Amino acid sequence: MARIVMKFGGTSMAGIERIRAVAARVKREVDSGNQVAVVVSAMAGETDRLVQLCKEAAALYDPREYDVVVASGEQVTSGLLAITLQGMGLNAKSYMGWQLPIRASGHSAALIENIDVDVLERVFDGGGIAVIPGFQGVTSEGAVATLGRGGSDTSAVALAAAMNADRCDIYTDVDGVYTTDPRIVPQARKLDMVTYEEMLELASVGAKVLQTRSVGLAMRYNMPLTVLSSFEDKPGTLIVGDHQLEESGMERNIITGIAHDKNEAMVTLTGLPDKAGTVAGIFAPLAEANVNVDMIVQSVPRTGEPSVLTFTVPTASLAHSVAELQKVQDDIGFQEILTDTNVVKISAVGVGMRSNAGIAARMFQTLAERGINILAITTSEIKVSVLIPEEYTELAVRVLHSAYGLDANREDVA
Amino acid sequence: MARIVMKFGGTSMAGIERIRAVAARVKREVDSGNQVAVVVSAMAGETDRLVQLCKEAAALYDPREYDVVVASGEQVTSGLLAITLQGMGLNAKSYMGWQLPIRASGHSAALIENIDVDVLERVFDGGGIAVIPGFQGVTSEGAVATLGRGGSDTSAVALAAAMNADRCDIYTDVDGVYTTDPRIVPQARKLDMVTYEEMLELASVGAKVLQTRSVGLAMRYNMPLTVLSSFEDKPGTLIVGDHQLEESGMERNIITGIAHDKNEAMVTLTGLPDKAGTVAGIFAPLAEANVNVDMIVQSVPRTGEPSVLTFTVPTASLAHSVAELQKVQDDIGFQEILTDTNVVKISAVGVGMRSNAGIAARMFQTLAERGINILAITTSEIKVSVLIPEEYTELAVRVLHSAYGLDANREDVA
Repeated sequence: MARIVMKFGGTSMAGIERIRAVAARVKREVDSGNQVAVVVSAMAGETDRLVQLCKEAAALYDPREYDVVVASGEQVTSGLLAITLQGMGLNAKSYMGWQLPIRASGHSAALIENIDVDVLERVFDGGGIAVIPGFQGVTSEGAVATLGRGGSDTSAVALAAAMNADRCDIYTDVDGVYTTDPRIVPQARKLDMVTYEEMLELASVGAKVLQTRSVGLAMRYNMPLTVLSSFEDKPGTLIVGDHQLEESGMERNIITGIAHDKNEAMVTLTGLPDKAGTVAGIFAPLAEANVNVDMIVQSVPRTGEPSVLTFTVPTASLAHSVAELQKVQDDIGFQEILTDTNVVKISAVGVGMRSNAGIAARMFQTLAERGINILAITTSEIKVSVLIPEEYTELAVRVLHSAYGLDANREDVA
Repeated sequence: MARIVMKFGGTSMAGIERIRAVAARVKREVDSGNQVAVVVSAMAGETDRLVQLCKEAAALYDPREYDVVVASGEQVTSGLLAITLQGMGLNAKSYMGWQLPIRASGHSAALIENIDVDVLERVFDGGGIAVIPGFQGVTSEGAVATLGRGGSDTSAVALAAAMNADRCDIYTDVDGVYTTDPRIVPQARKLDMVTYEEMLELASVGAKVLQTRSVGLAMRYNMPLTVLSSFEDKPGTLIVGDHQLEESGMERNIITGIAHDKNEAMVTLTGLPDKAGTVAGIFAPLAEANVNVDMIVQSVPRTGEPSVLTFTVPTASLAHSVAELQKVQDDIGFQEILTDTNVVKISAVGVGMRSNAGIAARMFQTLAERGINILAITTSEIKVSVLIPEEYTELAVRVLHSAYGLDANREDVA
């Protein structure tokens, strides 16, 4: 007997026929003797519809009331799944965030602070199934809270951790995590196993299978996650810690995957005076404005001459960033603010990179051979990222996927 | 300064533009210095959609989970109205049934047991507006409960009573209570004032402006109700007690209105043995099955001979009633069960009837002149009802409306 959390995304819950298929999967786990809590998303498109209604109601909508409105989508699907499971003869009940309760830190992009599992323990003791709406909790004032878009993944992992689950299965509309976007590279392969850190890097650079927060949370609690398809019966991708990966003894590529992220914009400041505090004077106001600066490149001019500074920010923060920079322009005394949104960040990710030199070099070499200009570079222990012109996205992903030996049926290349 | 409850129905809440119009009405009351609680329905059609989803999920859906699903419609509109009011610079917040709380007796067609007004008092003390989803409460186990279709009217009246409101205004898609259905009689007039009892009789016989339960509740607490249009700025119909009606000194017709109800089915049992306990043996099982038997006519045969019994039941209960009757058929020994759904109940209602003889006689006379056959009759202190073949519905309503002097611009007829 295992204790598991099963989480189903919006496309899996889109309509009664699909909910019936979800219920059949839940039944199979229960019939195998497992204790099951199910976390559900709203029907696909429903949260967008509700968000749109809030925006139409008032441009500056109140997060407290926004949460009341948008949390309703998951309330509906959890009730419907409970009804469907009961119709199959199972003992299922729904529990809203305020009923368990799932304590959340505030509104609209709240963090989960604490989950009371007393109710769940009683449900399991009675041989029951708990159906829990994802994405929602309750504030200390007793108001409905939501966790931010994609928050249902985080709900599932937090719940799994709180109830000491053996694993957390994330059912979605893809059948696992791939070496890269299969729409770009048909030879992309499904990965059997990735580590939390790899998944974090892949997720943060555009492989949107799981919400980044949920992976971080799973890593913190060492909760095994599986990403698998709601629609097909085949094994998915297991996401575990380094240790479990090593124990598995699985042969792996040095590089696990290639990701791309078009949500970065490049900012270039020209004519920066060569004096102390210039760079700090630029990044401090951006940090205060909660802008997440990523790649930074500074030209190194001759002493005493003005230099050029290039960095990237999320595209959504670009207008805001430029406004902040204009405020300090006269004080700092730089010349121009140039922006470019036609850029893409391409990343190679893999824990194998730690013990292998030459990974970055191979990337630069491969891109140079195709005449692709690198605008900025950033690296972490398990990732190398480059910023390139957006028009080269697909070409760069394909050549790197191949260069790192990730193409299916070409094991010999590695 | 007055303390008021404003209730808005589904057509008034159908979409952001209409919610904005609702908010403008609320603002006007607040600007006049009133303390306002607003009760809202789900957007028109939303509750039907949610009920349909539950039915598709499982034929015998669990009332607990049904309530979770269908209560979401009002959750959405209350959040949206709060956002819209805030957008107009007003201090508004939504409070779900479980947040106040509104204690309800059980699931799906729950009664309101108790409303805690502490939160509301604090809202009013702070100059705020409370937006409350109609139709919902919370059970003693902490589960979401709904009050049955049309329950938002009841929510509004119960809330008005609990918070000692000066009045409860029901905004809807008609501009008041009419002497009869204006689609049948163009000369129908809007009534300025009706009594709770008249409204109860009119509502129970098909004038579906207000949920019957809400009128009964208003009568119990002597809460003045006004039915008025969300879409037009004109006075509606005030619903008050006999006493207030008398105090108003208003000249009124003896008959207040003519209603019709097609949701009755006629059941005829033939060949009933003339022995003690026969009639009891028929109605006892129907009562146990919660079938609401209305009009009863028994033919009076010669002693010792079999008789015929005719009565009406709600059309929705007909199949169920026939099944119950078939179970006792052999025991009781009647011959046949005949049913007819092509019947309509026509009622003349008015408190003036109490002190006036000849009201029923005029009805029978008027219908007889048109050759309309009366199948059954029932009367109360302020109502005379007849069952007639359905095809005469419009004709009967028109001639009675005229016969009782209700046609507009024909005061001389009265």
